[in-house]
Amino acid sequence: MIVTILHDEHLPDGLGAVERVAEVRYATADTLAEALPGTEVLLVWDFFSHALEAAWPAADSLRWIHVAAAGVDTLLFDGLVNSDVVVTNSRGIFDRPIAEFVLASMLAFAKDVPRSLRLQDGRLWRHRETEQLAGTSAVVVGTGAIGREIAGLLRAVGVEVVGAGRRERSGDPDFGEVRLSDDLESYVGDHDWLVMVAPLTEQTEHMVGERVLAAMKPTARLINVGRGELVVTEDLVASIESRSIAGAALDVFETEPLPAESPLWRFENVLISPHMSGDARGWRDRLAKLFVDNVERYVAGDGLRNVVDKQRGYVASDS
Amino acid sequence: MIVTILHDEHLPDGLGAVERVAEVRYATADTLAEALPGTEVLLVWDFFSHALEAAWPAADSLRWIHVAAAGVDTLLFDGLVNSDVVVTNSRGIFDRPIAEFVLASMLAFAKDVPRSLRLQDGRLWRHRETEQLAGTSAVVVGTGAIGREIAGLLRAVGVEVVGAGRRERSGDPDFGEVRLSDDLESYVGDHDWLVMVAPLTEQTEHMVGERVLAAMKPTARLINVGRGELVVTEDLVASIESRSIAGAALDVFETEPLPAESPLWRFENVLISPHMSGDARGWRDRLAKLFVDNVERYVAGDGLRNVVDKQRGYVASDS
Repeated sequence: MIVTILHDEHLPDGLGAVERVAEVRYATADTLAEALPGTEVLLVWDFFSHALEAAWPAADSLRWIHVAAAGVDTLLFDGLVNSDVVVTNSRGIFDRPIAEFVLASMLAFAKDVPRSLRLQDGRLWRHRETEQLAGTSAVVVGTGAIGREIAGLLRAVGVEVVGAGRRERSGDPDFGEVRLSDDLESYVGDHDWLVMVAPLTEQTEHMVGERVLAAMKPTARLINVGRGELVVTEDLVASIESRSIAGAALDVFETEPLPAESPLWRFENVLISPHMSGDARGWRDRLAKLFVDNVERYVAGDGLRNVVDKQRGYVASDS
Repeated sequence: MIVTILHDEHLPDGLGAVERVAEVRYATADTLAEALPGTEVLLVWDFFSHALEAAWPAADSLRWIHVAAAGVDTLLFDGLVNSDVVVTNSRGIFDRPIAEFVLASMLAFAKDVPRSLRLQDGRLWRHRETEQLAGTSAVVVGTGAIGREIAGLLRAVGVEVVGAGRRERSGDPDFGEVRLSDDLESYVGDHDWLVMVAPLTEQTEHMVGERVLAAMKPTARLINVGRGELVVTEDLVASIESRSIAGAALDVFETEPLPAESPLWRFENVLISPHMSGDARGWRDRLAKLFVDNVERYVAGDGLRNVVDKQRGYVASDS
């Protein structure tokens, strides 16, 4: 069995168990086409890479691709979607860190942390009133594992939560109520926080545009830890400029790294971070371990963990 | 009945119910001695004021003092402590906001929020790994209502908590284990966070000095939302400078406002805020309402809420 690892400057550690059962090839975007012939298993460690589509004709023996990320939007293309190649992702690794990151962003706004830091830099003592987070209300768009972890953490600190997804339902174990994400505009105005963690698909792309933003409370804030393309960037900039919403915490962007000329950098009520919300110390080791576990299942003929529904673009159930 | 209100530039709202049952006098530090003769009830609305001690000889009819703060250290002096005058405080108003503020500070450190903001100001995209808060461990010094609220909130987000107080015990409903605060040095090294919320008394003054700081993990951080005098400021500065601890979030200081020349302002791993952790929007209204409620109890001859043990310097039980 040949296992190929598509990587950038970072290489995974702890793959000894894979090396014992397979020939392991290492490839970068430039050398992937050379490495693919004969490859049965591909680990996409460089998860922002688009290299596979170009090298696809060389994939003569490929049966399974494992992605070291939760979102697989970068990877999926028609040839792969319509093939028999199984895709798995790294669901579970990022849940708690991302949920904590969302809570950190909300508390930073509620307790005016950015202003405190800027006043500190000027050695200025200026008392302000803070906001209480408990009793506020959030809509979490995305009802996968990360959205569920966010919902649980927010509820634990007294925030009311509803979910938004493709199917309306009540009695959900994590969300209670799940509303239709297509109808977001009609109920987003009832909430103080809009948290975006949906996978990027044709249905979710640019879901948050002018109309949803206009429907938000002027005191509400947007948190995006999903994908930049869930939001229409220029509409967000306009709503921040016109103060039609109170702020945004953005960890993901339509173009990454966020270009220096983006107006988003300069707003005092926008928090920018560089796509790091899920990357708690040790994340690479946990990603490698999950892959090793799945390789062991593959070799044993057991069911793989985190099989992606390639039509939908995410893990559809507790696989 | 005469009720006198000691205030600064802020006046309490919503005292109509008091005005209906009493003559209400308004006084500042300068005019307190004139207002006190005949006064039966004093509301210390300007809770940082030391004016009462100087005006004490004029307090010929005083029976009850209500303080619009949780800490009464600024108010207590021997003449008052040894008198029959009852002191009540505003326990309960600040609990949740302060607990959220502590959590906000911890998450700001864990998720590297200050560095993200400084990078944002420079329009710089620099990926970093974050810390996971769940699974870390905190010791909360102060087992009053605010300490209990902090313990509950931290546990809700997966932080392990022990309390530290005057009496060792296990099976505490909020803390589980409570250790002796006098022995802090011997166990503080087992924890990632040291949260100070004890009342300022002779026993707690300068509790966190060179020895406790030296016993902390180099990765641990101090959060002080109690009183500045709980900490030896120059020892804290030394331990930040020598990196013997990883950081501090300070909302209270030995001198307030923190003087511009203080070295604390300039550390990137120290978060400074201006004694605002409890002051969530609407706090003044809630303080006034608590006083009105206590006046109604006083007039009805019912027991007052939040009676302070003047010898100990805080509300000793659920009164």
